[in-house]
Amino acid sequence: MVIGVDLGATNIHAGLVDEEGRISGEVVRGYDCTSKHDVIEVLLDVLSSLKDKARSVKKSVKKIGLVCPGPVDIDNGLLINATNLPGWGVVPIRDMISDATGMDVHLDNDAVGAVLAEAWVGKARGLNTFMAVTLGTGVGTGVVLDGKVFRGGRRKGTEWGHLIMSNKGLYRCACGNDGCIETMCSATALVRLAQKKGLNVLSAKDVCKAAADKDIIALEVMDEFSYNLARALYNYSLVLGPEIIVICGGLSASHELFLPGVRKYFTGLFSGKEYMMPPMGIEMSRFPDNAGIIGAAYLCMEDRRIGL
Amino acid sequence: MVIGVDLGATNIHAGLVDEEGRISGEVVRGYDCTSKHDVIEVLLDVLSSLKDKARSVKKSVKKIGLVCPGPVDIDNGLLINATNLPGWGVVPIRDMISDATGMDVHLDNDAVGAVLAEAWVGKARGLNTFMAVTLGTGVGTGVVLDGKVFRGGRRKGTEWGHLIMSNKGLYRCACGNDGCIETMCSATALVRLAQKKGLNVLSAKDVCKAAADKDIIALEVMDEFSYNLARALYNYSLVLGPEIIVICGGLSASHELFLPGVRKYFTGLFSGKEYMMPPMGIEMSRFPDNAGIIGAAYLCMEDRRIGL
Repeated sequence: MVIGVDLGATNIHAGLVDEEGRISGEVVRGYDCTSKHDVIEVLLDVLSSLKDKARSVKKSVKKIGLVCPGPVDIDNGLLINATNLPGWGVVPIRDMISDATGMDVHLDNDAVGAVLAEAWVGKARGLNTFMAVTLGTGVGTGVVLDGKVFRGGRRKGTEWGHLIMSNKGLYRCACGNDGCIETMCSATALVRLAQKKGLNVLSAKDVCKAAADKDIIALEVMDEFSYNLARALYNYSLVLGPEIIVICGGLSASHELFLPGVRKYFTGLFSGKEYMMPPMGIEMSRFPDNAGIIGAAYLCMEDRRIGL
Repeated sequence: MVIGVDLGATNIHAGLVDEEGRISGEVVRGYDCTSKHDVIEVLLDVLSSLKDKARSVKKSVKKIGLVCPGPVDIDNGLLINATNLPGWGVVPIRDMISDATGMDVHLDNDAVGAVLAEAWVGKARGLNTFMAVTLGTGVGTGVVLDGKVFRGGRRKGTEWGHLIMSNKGLYRCACGNDGCIETMCSATALVRLAQKKGLNVLSAKDVCKAAADKDIIALEVMDEFSYNLARALYNYSLVLGPEIIVICGGLSASHELFLPGVRKYFTGLFSGKEYMMPPMGIEMSRFPDNAGIIGAAYLCMEDRRIGL
């Protein structure tokens, strides 16, 4: 049994994970991300309560898997200038937690965590080349290529979410550019698109609710969003040649509102080069809420099939 | 010594290539690509004259490297439905030539040929992850990832030239879609852009000549073309993380008209994520005209450093 931790920008999400990828004792704890020292304190408290839980079922835990938003240097255990953790700079988070707990800590990026969860107990089990696309505040993309996590040339990471796909996006992205995939396919983009079309909404949930209630403008918004997402996934497919694309993240709870449209537009884009379509298509993750915990736990497993 | 052959859509370009990647006895022969049997005849004639040339310098040749436009199945030696060789269908070209000549034939795609030429004796020597982008009628892209030609998941090939980058391109691409990179960054796109802006031009050479003569509209066209190409190469860099991008193909002869602009826009796009820029930047190929011959010859070399 190991502990899997998904350190998000507003919550720490953690649990005990067994050798079959099953979670128990799940904990969600909010925190103020402006102070990295507070986070470490909250995190240590969470870890301690999970160790107690393990003890209560006569199990011991010696390993922690941790996934974080933003670039990580896994070889040196560093979290590097995460956009959504402003002011943190470069944090030697692996050693900080390892020193404080005496436990082995395995660190990776949260998009990697999502794709590892799919590889281990999700929709990509047994496959070699695939991706997990997380639709939330941003667009995260974890990639496995020939049975190994793909980290880009020089292991500098990849930025699939910031590919430029349009002359002009809905808003200027935090990445500095206009028209990147994140500005057209994230939950943030969905809200902006709805506001631009005159809907009085504040969150992606509001937009999804209006669409579920068959508001005509909200349905139009969903259609345009589906079209944008189809184009993004088409671009990914042309370059990677994945066997499946798994969608996860906060928006996947509302997948029935956009997935049929995405699949329709996606198929249309491949006309004449059908052989390049992912043979297993676009699927929803089975664990939109806790892929991070499962993927983090997988980092600790010694008999991993998917290499890091 | 081996024979390298670049089978283009209008010309066969071939030569003898020695162990150092030097070409001799280069031959360019036009042909009518509408009949694949004529092509084989012309090709056999070219091969026979190159064998004679080799004999005249007391060398023997036993291997042929062949690169072709369009998808190839290298494992089975097939050229598959090449867009620019209409009506050819699936051609077992490796065995056809091998049977007719009694020589070993090594087949690959022409974009792979270009990147192998750079790997062997060009700007990418000694590097591990890089790409060669060929700007001609279309946009061809050969990729080496961690010292091995990258053929996409399931070895189905990749289509970097058809990534969608704009809401609306200059024309509808043969790929069926609007706004893909090929419709914005190829020589064809350069001509369309110039015509759209009112220039009376028929070829990329005409546009380049007008720009070299400081025609104001032609300079504007070159600037917009540079901007488009910078965005395409930025997209490629985000996903691949290359150490260098080498530009080749017909347009590279006029690189002084667009390369400074491309480099300027390219750098601007990486603001805030400079660590993702290719450390060796964007460079012009040393052999815009005969990279295909060199790369084809490299296919035959047994001590290749770059894997296929």
